[in-house]
Amino acid sequence: MSELTSIRIGLLGCGTVGTGVLRILAENREDIQARLGAELVVTRILVHDLDRQRDESVPRALLTDDPLEVLGSPEVDVVAEVMGGYEPARSYVLAALKNGKHVITANKALLAQHGPEIFQAATDAKRDVIFEASVGGGMPIVRMLREGLAAEHVESICAIINGTSNYILSAMAEHGASYDAALARAQELGFAEADPTLDVGGGDAAQKLSILVSLAFGRHVPFAEIPTQGIDTVEDLDIGYARTFGYAIKPLALAQSHGDGVEARVHPALVERGGSFATVSAAFNAVRVDSRGVGPLLLQGQGAGMLPTASAVVSDAVELGRSFLRGTSGRLPHLAFLPDGRPTTGLKDPGAACHPWYLRVPVRDEPGVLAQVAKGLGDAGVSVQQILQDRPSEDGPVQVVMMTQEATRSAITGFTQDAHEALWCLGAVQAIPIHEGV
Amino acid sequence: MSELTSIRIGLLGCGTVGTGVLRILAENREDIQARLGAELVVTRILVHDLDRQRDESVPRALLTDDPLEVLGSPEVDVVAEVMGGYEPARSYVLAALKNGKHVITANKALLAQHGPEIFQAATDAKRDVIFEASVGGGMPIVRMLREGLAAEHVESICAIINGTSNYILSAMAEHGASYDAALARAQELGFAEADPTLDVGGGDAAQKLSILVSLAFGRHVPFAEIPTQGIDTVEDLDIGYARTFGYAIKPLALAQSHGDGVEARVHPALVERGGSFATVSAAFNAVRVDSRGVGPLLLQGQGAGMLPTASAVVSDAVELGRSFLRGTSGRLPHLAFLPDGRPTTGLKDPGAACHPWYLRVPVRDEPGVLAQVAKGLGDAGVSVQQILQDRPSEDGPVQVVMMTQEATRSAITGFTQDAHEALWCLGAVQAIPIHEGV
Repeated sequence: MSELTSIRIGLLGCGTVGTGVLRILAENREDIQARLGAELVVTRILVHDLDRQRDESVPRALLTDDPLEVLGSPEVDVVAEVMGGYEPARSYVLAALKNGKHVITANKALLAQHGPEIFQAATDAKRDVIFEASVGGGMPIVRMLREGLAAEHVESICAIINGTSNYILSAMAEHGASYDAALARAQELGFAEADPTLDVGGGDAAQKLSILVSLAFGRHVPFAEIPTQGIDTVEDLDIGYARTFGYAIKPLALAQSHGDGVEARVHPALVERGGSFATVSAAFNAVRVDSRGVGPLLLQGQGAGMLPTASAVVSDAVELGRSFLRGTSGRLPHLAFLPDGRPTTGLKDPGAACHPWYLRVPVRDEPGVLAQVAKGLGDAGVSVQQILQDRPSEDGPVQVVMMTQEATRSAITGFTQDAHEALWCLGAVQAIPIHEGV
Repeated sequence: MSELTSIRIGLLGCGTVGTGVLRILAENREDIQARLGAELVVTRILVHDLDRQRDESVPRALLTDDPLEVLGSPEVDVVAEVMGGYEPARSYVLAALKNGKHVITANKALLAQHGPEIFQAATDAKRDVIFEASVGGGMPIVRMLREGLAAEHVESICAIINGTSNYILSAMAEHGASYDAALARAQELGFAEADPTLDVGGGDAAQKLSILVSLAFGRHVPFAEIPTQGIDTVEDLDIGYARTFGYAIKPLALAQSHGDGVEARVHPALVERGGSFATVSAAFNAVRVDSRGVGPLLLQGQGAGMLPTASAVVSDAVELGRSFLRGTSGRLPHLAFLPDGRPTTGLKDPGAACHPWYLRVPVRDEPGVLAQVAKGLGDAGVSVQQILQDRPSEDGPVQVVMMTQEATRSAITGFTQDAHEALWCLGAVQAIPIHEGV
């Protein structure tokens, strides 16, 4: 038997994902070779601190703290960036492309922020940049959009793509934990970062949604322009009331294609308890894609974690290896559509988005207050479908909890502003969209 | 702007799926071109009867009843076989490959029966044969296994992949229909064939499972060797009792990889009502794949129907088009693994498969019968977890319904044979496996 060809990988970073890549390559070695007919070998690993204690799967002889020893090495065919962050990840990826390496990245922040520059550099260098691990961990959502739905007109995306947010809301619902306790627990378990702002504030989901929108609709939407509401305003009260009405609260990322633009938003939402999204548990991500011919398609899997994410990185290495063995590249447009295939369009006015809402208004315990709430809603043009009054604690306010008919975000904002100024309202109005059909 | 390159498709067959292909190509034309940078054009359509009434999306000028006008035409780059059946589909596909055409097929029966011959012919001719539409309709399960999980060691597959069976069991559960009424309704709706044997007997699911096993484990299992139990023995009684115990009955196709072989089987099974499989409704298919690094991955979508299936065919045309434009082929092994990547192994003895069971035993209404049933179970080495006695009709037998602990199929078969011979048993014993965790 002739010697196996090797595809040589240089790793940038050796934290959780990098260590996972080494483990997947070792544990699934036989399966990978039987598919690829070649072996995937890590030949260089860039780390920040050579002396740090590491997993035994990390071969010390491959470690270097000199980026050029990876980016410029003739013994590296593919560079896998698993370090995260904007810089130096961006400079390293650009340098790798310039040096003729193909690039794998798991870095959604980098792509959401510097995608256009990186993809242009890849095109100029006739090299590939692929990024299955950047969205949804081990869930092959990038391939599903880029290849599985290659014949489709995608109409909408609804996704749970931030694990920390889903963990926190799940823990609040299942164990009755407060938001703060659930967040602390998520941090203990290594689910949430020390600074969880990007996760619980919705920024991470907006970055991922921006990538999904490009892949699904062929239109670039800068993630910073996506209207984003974090889960950090959801209280345990809200989860309880939502349950009373037959709903769970889940952190959603939503996008819809319209002829004249894209509607995209990130926010917690009420979803029906009998639906498929309500049961997506802590560590899982889910994406529902609706397209014209295929209809609804649902993908669910582990959205984070060492091995799922690392497996996605290695699946990209297999893909590059398959092209590499045939001496080809550029088979697929980086973002599924050819760069000039679709005009860039703006984001649709989020104020115009129309759906039912969950509203919770803390009010004084006085006769006539409900009439005032009802009048406020009427003035804002919002119709109520169900209403519930509750006083969860003796010395606290009465909570008026409502499920509304379809209303625009502008109408709801109008109501909450008026309520805030009114004497009968004792605090912030909670307003969470209701998303049917998932 | 320069003229668009055309990828020219010859259709074999113009029934439901063929007509759907023409519609997808027309309706999603703009999206497809923006992705591919070329256009997909149907240039020839082989039909059996030129004079039949057809959908207005079928251009009459392209119709021919001469196979050579498609298979031998210099104006055809890709042949899409959407006619179904073994012959003449097999001969046409082989002829197309010989003539240098790439082939798309939606025909699971053809692949399950003649796959080895067809893939060998493709390799000899240096042409591709791809078949996303052959399993799971619009659900991109073939790509998920072949590319998304390319770095994985797949451990098991659990799937609902026969729409007719799922429709019938769903209709029985939701509307209390009898098996015969549900089947008749499925036939009225065009869900089920006039001869539904292949669907309700489990043969169709076994064919698809054989393809999934090849893609997931790299091991060929002839579909005729897969132990298959149809849904045609499930009675409305069973659906009701299953519900009482907290379960739904679903038509499953299951496979598991062992170091020394593959375990595969097709049968109705009880699944927990709170799980993700219980809610897979009539027209939907679902596949859960468990792999070492990624863990559980769930895909759900429309498993049949004109447009979903046609969209899968056209996604294959886009994939071939992408290779075609670069003058490459053979990027992926047809069945995900290289032909010599894995040894062929036998199917494990299905009698040894161990899981809990649902048993229903019709008995005489006499004192002491329950003790006899219990003794029979004890003799067979089967432990019972829950038991229920019911007499659904005054003049019918008493039904002893049980949920057992884990037991092998051999043990259950032993019990049912003994019961059948015993005087206290008044008819066939119903035995349905319970599948936890989906």
